[in-house]
Amino acid sequence: MPDLIRSWVETANAPQNPFPLNNLPFGVFSAGDAPRCAVAIGDNVLDLGALQAAGLLPDHGFDAPALNTFMAKGKEVWNDVRQKLTDLLREGNKTQAVADALHDLSGVTMHLPFTVAEYTDFYAGRQHAFNVGSLFRDPANALPPNWLHIPIGYNGRASTVVVSGTDFHRPMGQMKGPQDDMPSFGPCKRLDIELEMGAVVGVPSEMGDTVSVDEADDMIFGYVLLNDWSARDIQAWEYQPLGPFQAKAFATTISPWVVTKSALAPFRCATPPREKELLPHIRDTGPMLYDIDLSVSMTAPNGTPTVICRTNYNTLYYSAAQQLAHHASSGCAMRTGDLLGSGTISGPEKGMFGSLLEMTWGGKDAITLDDGQTRTFIEDGDTLTLQGNAQGDGYCIGFGACTGTILPARSARNGGS
Amino acid sequence: MPDLIRSWVETANAPQNPFPLNNLPFGVFSAGDAPRCAVAIGDNVLDLGALQAAGLLPDHGFDAPALNTFMAKGKEVWNDVRQKLTDLLREGNKTQAVADALHDLSGVTMHLPFTVAEYTDFYAGRQHAFNVGSLFRDPANALPPNWLHIPIGYNGRASTVVVSGTDFHRPMGQMKGPQDDMPSFGPCKRLDIELEMGAVVGVPSEMGDTVSVDEADDMIFGYVLLNDWSARDIQAWEYQPLGPFQAKAFATTISPWVVTKSALAPFRCATPPREKELLPHIRDTGPMLYDIDLSVSMTAPNGTPTVICRTNYNTLYYSAAQQLAHHASSGCAMRTGDLLGSGTISGPEKGMFGSLLEMTWGGKDAITLDDGQTRTFIEDGDTLTLQGNAQGDGYCIGFGACTGTILPARSARNGGS
Repeated sequence: MPDLIRSWVETANAPQNPFPLNNLPFGVFSAGDAPRCAVAIGDNVLDLGALQAAGLLPDHGFDAPALNTFMAKGKEVWNDVRQKLTDLLREGNKTQAVADALHDLSGVTMHLPFTVAEYTDFYAGRQHAFNVGSLFRDPANALPPNWLHIPIGYNGRASTVVVSGTDFHRPMGQMKGPQDDMPSFGPCKRLDIELEMGAVVGVPSEMGDTVSVDEADDMIFGYVLLNDWSARDIQAWEYQPLGPFQAKAFATTISPWVVTKSALAPFRCATPPREKELLPHIRDTGPMLYDIDLSVSMTAPNGTPTVICRTNYNTLYYSAAQQLAHHASSGCAMRTGDLLGSGTISGPEKGMFGSLLEMTWGGKDAITLDDGQTRTFIEDGDTLTLQGNAQGDGYCIGFGACTGTILPARSARNGGS
Repeated sequence: MPDLIRSWVETANAPQNPFPLNNLPFGVFSAGDAPRCAVAIGDNVLDLGALQAAGLLPDHGFDAPALNTFMAKGKEVWNDVRQKLTDLLREGNKTQAVADALHDLSGVTMHLPFTVAEYTDFYAGRQHAFNVGSLFRDPANALPPNWLHIPIGYNGRASTVVVSGTDFHRPMGQMKGPQDDMPSFGPCKRLDIELEMGAVVGVPSEMGDTVSVDEADDMIFGYVLLNDWSARDIQAWEYQPLGPFQAKAFATTISPWVVTKSALAPFRCATPPREKELLPHIRDTGPMLYDIDLSVSMTAPNGTPTVICRTNYNTLYYSAAQQLAHHASSGCAMRTGDLLGSGTISGPEKGMFGSLLEMTWGGKDAITLDDGQTRTFIEDGDTLTLQGNAQGDGYCIGFGACTGTILPARSARNGGS
């Protein structure tokens, strides 16, 4: 484990600050003007558009409102920029030009860090797959027969991926309870979260090409926190036989910062032992998961935040590199800006479950918040926040909060409940 | 039914020409230079970029290699441009400037007509859903319980939507037969087509907005032929519980021409009687399907084309407008360039089935081509071609062929079969 790299930005040297010089996560910000690329450092953002204009960084499109141009360039460019930024920000190297490009993090607006090309959601958490299989299908055969052989995934909806802090309305949808004669259309009653991480594809692949697990790992630019909001009542009615659709289409929230693979490298860890040997095209080639502590907190209106889940990214069965290799295995072209959700990250015990569906076991066992309020699913005005932290030796690597507040459903134009 | 509108482009007046002045489908072409927008007229393409540059059309981005700018502008602009083009091309109105913008259709290259934002595939053919349910699941309960209540759909993969004439390699994938102990990875052995039409979204909707069926119809710019190539062996192993993924991700082919709603208006027809009354948000508001004859032909290497399916778009249960209203019902933002596959269009009898899976009943009953060769699924070198035709009174409306030839699988880098 490397030591803290000290910066002349003093706040970056505090052991609990999520943005030390070891991190340098990438995002897009604005300060009353046009959005442009940045890294976080301590309590500041560093304007990469300004550094590029000043000739302190090469032109990798940092003046654009999305990281895609830079993300497409691959690991040599990523590492070169990381090295240049490390030098510019290292203790003792302070210059006025760089100091002038700093903004207070608390005073800027964060935007979606990249243009999402397509969004794919996987299902790589074994405990989650087991729990959901038990609740939605058959407890005796909870894990699907293919689950131990392929990283199951489905295509999600990219048009509603939003940055942390974007509030949205409770979705409407069609649903039908087991006792109902006919379905009805109205506001979702079983609104849920899914605690996930997202892998962000930088380097594209061509249609017809397959990629190895190691090549896939090289294509990944970095990781975000990801909340795959889910309408469980809509999902239960719609998802057979072709999978989730409107139950997941209304919003997916990601953290404002993309943490790079370089920042996470000291926290690499192995996937768990294989119950069934994987086929060669998706077989592990080394440690490709990460030791990242994750948590979810829930805040009711006028309430106090309560941590309702603590788990770790290292509990997943498949790495993002394995998921990406599988994704391209048919010759599917992968694109700069593709976002790959990990699947819900549920640890083996109840306090480690990454969705309310699991925490309340299908709504049967309400959870109690620290202020005494109880919840089965999300109510209007509730705020849900994901946090991620990789704990180094004297420093930590954070992602910024991944948060959203649920607004009441809009009245439907055509037949609400 | 309106009469043929006669054009000074004489080939457009022939009763069997697919591109009379009544049609005016939009596409993107090049003639050894930069791709730009066009309409088809008789045996020609008309260069809209040139007309825009000459001041004969307003600037709607026709000099770009995609129709998206024009598609986003909505029905008043679409109708205005259609009227202007009709006037420019009407018999008696020939001018040199317009004649100079014509190219022989046989000499140009056609490109993907629009940038596909996201691709969604529906499942709106009742006979197809019944057939597939019988083959993949339980013949006694072939139609899923939700099928008569919602237009079932799933998110497909946009990165591999290609224009007609794009050949591609047989996909690789993981599969497991019912008698196999373990899955294997190798070339797909049960490669199939799905005869569909695609609705092309022009006008976007905002995240959080729902749209009525009539509003959805107004958002649709036009229709293409669509072949949703499918790897049945990969699909059978992967699709539970989250739906098709790599089995459909390797290629989707569309026709080069987008036929507008205006051109198809005389062919509007009603959806079939409702076995279960639809909920208000997706209820029919008038005739929204179209009477379009569809066919599939198959050509083996060194063989002659054989028509293996004849059916009609009017056999579907849900219209594209109903599918789009459902798609936005959760507040899912819809975007310019979204492509909505109809689902496989299978008529009620065997010669009307839109996939080989159905024609051969899961590979059990081979079909015989006109040259004596037999097929269960697609073999290397086979060419599959979809055609569509709306038959007017003395004219017809075509889409151009939607065709592709299957190349042999590439050897896998990591463990082929």
